[in-house]
Amino acid sequence: MWQLYQFPLCPFSRKVRLLMSEKGIGYELQRENPWDGRDEFFHLNPAGRTPVLADHGKGVVLIDSRAICEYFEETVDKNPMINGSAASRAEIRRLVALFDENFFGDVTAPLLHERMKKRLVYRASPDSRMLREAMKLAHEHLDYIDYLIDNRPWLAGAQMSLADLAAAAQISVVDYLGGIDWSGHEQSKGWYALFKSRPSFRPLLAERMDVIQPPSHYADPNA
Amino acid sequence: MWQLYQFPLCPFSRKVRLLMSEKGIGYELQRENPWDGRDEFFHLNPAGRTPVLADHGKGVVLIDSRAICEYFEETVDKNPMINGSAASRAEIRRLVALFDENFFGDVTAPLLHERMKKRLVYRASPDSRMLREAMKLAHEHLDYIDYLIDNRPWLAGAQMSLADLAAAAQISVVDYLGGIDWSGHEQSKGWYALFKSRPSFRPLLAERMDVIQPPSHYADPNA
Repeated sequence: MWQLYQFPLCPFSRKVRLLMSEKGIGYELQRENPWDGRDEFFHLNPAGRTPVLADHGKGVVLIDSRAICEYFEETVDKNPMINGSAASRAEIRRLVALFDENFFGDVTAPLLHERMKKRLVYRASPDSRMLREAMKLAHEHLDYIDYLIDNRPWLAGAQMSLADLAAAAQISVVDYLGGIDWSGHEQSKGWYALFKSRPSFRPLLAERMDVIQPPSHYADPNA
Repeated sequence: MWQLYQFPLCPFSRKVRLLMSEKGIGYELQRENPWDGRDEFFHLNPAGRTPVLADHGKGVVLIDSRAICEYFEETVDKNPMINGSAASRAEIRRLVALFDENFFGDVTAPLLHERMKKRLVYRASPDSRMLREAMKLAHEHLDYIDYLIDNRPWLAGAQMSLADLAAAAQISVVDYLGGIDWSGHEQSKGWYALFKSRPSFRPLLAERMDVIQPPSHYADPNA
């Protein structure tokens, strides 16, 4: 059985969980707070980051969310998520990088720092200027999702792909932390509402961090 | 003909150039400084980052260095760089992420900021504390490369792979900026010397940024 080392608000672990669930691959959760810096975890992953996926019985350890997703895309046929021509696959991977790197750096990372790490680790108050800037950038990213959904059924084209999972994973973390204002983003909201009702997404939306609670609309597929 | 939008010290463009050269794919260079924020470049890539690879005649635009490398791995058989079993491919991709994200974030990005951007864009002096910290982390990354080369002929295993190209691309930029102290890293130095003499690497080592010059050992395969 796969053991997924993760914490509830890690967007990259969420992406892997969505992919595994869509592909019907079972796994158990192992809570790992990277800020604890556990020696055993650094022994497993010298980069010290979640997610790490291990099958200790088989001696397999997979590290880095994109490497993990590519691995399951290559080894499990069900529900392909990096599909189509080489150009289509490049478009899926472009958007995965856009959400993993730009959206994460602009929005998710500052929100996690201000509203999670400062509370749990540093016992400090969030910086309201940083929060405002991150939420402004969230609007720009949602504008881009609105534009994509105006032109395509799913973010990368005609079918749901890893691009959608990567985007939904980031957005769900930011939404949990109260960083998404959906007003004026009807296309993004409609696309995201489809996700909220998927069986792969329900377990993620039901999880809670200690101390930090999400806004009331967070897990409601009709809100 | 492919047009590669890049600037000489962009490590991700260097990785793509090494891959294309190893696979025998021709391209022309288009100088693009992301800090100029050209409208035409943002039109090509909403993320505003190099590298972008475009074949304007065929209407193909590829964005994100990992997506570009996967595209050529899928479409050009010569010199496979993400090769082997699914587990071997996952190990290659783990190391690519380690160098693209951790090495870049710990070492390359601070060096580029302090020694390139501050000089060219902000006209400010580098912060010596930031430089010391980045160079300390460079030693830790070289320790890890030493460890890998103690156990394997190439970083990810028995054959040269995209992991080696990703690592050499980052290191070459940091070495250009005087941020690598090779003393005590014989394994890393020997592995990197092999690269310096490869035909794919020679054109990169011959290029110079305006104003900023590399140390004398930079392009010398015997130094």
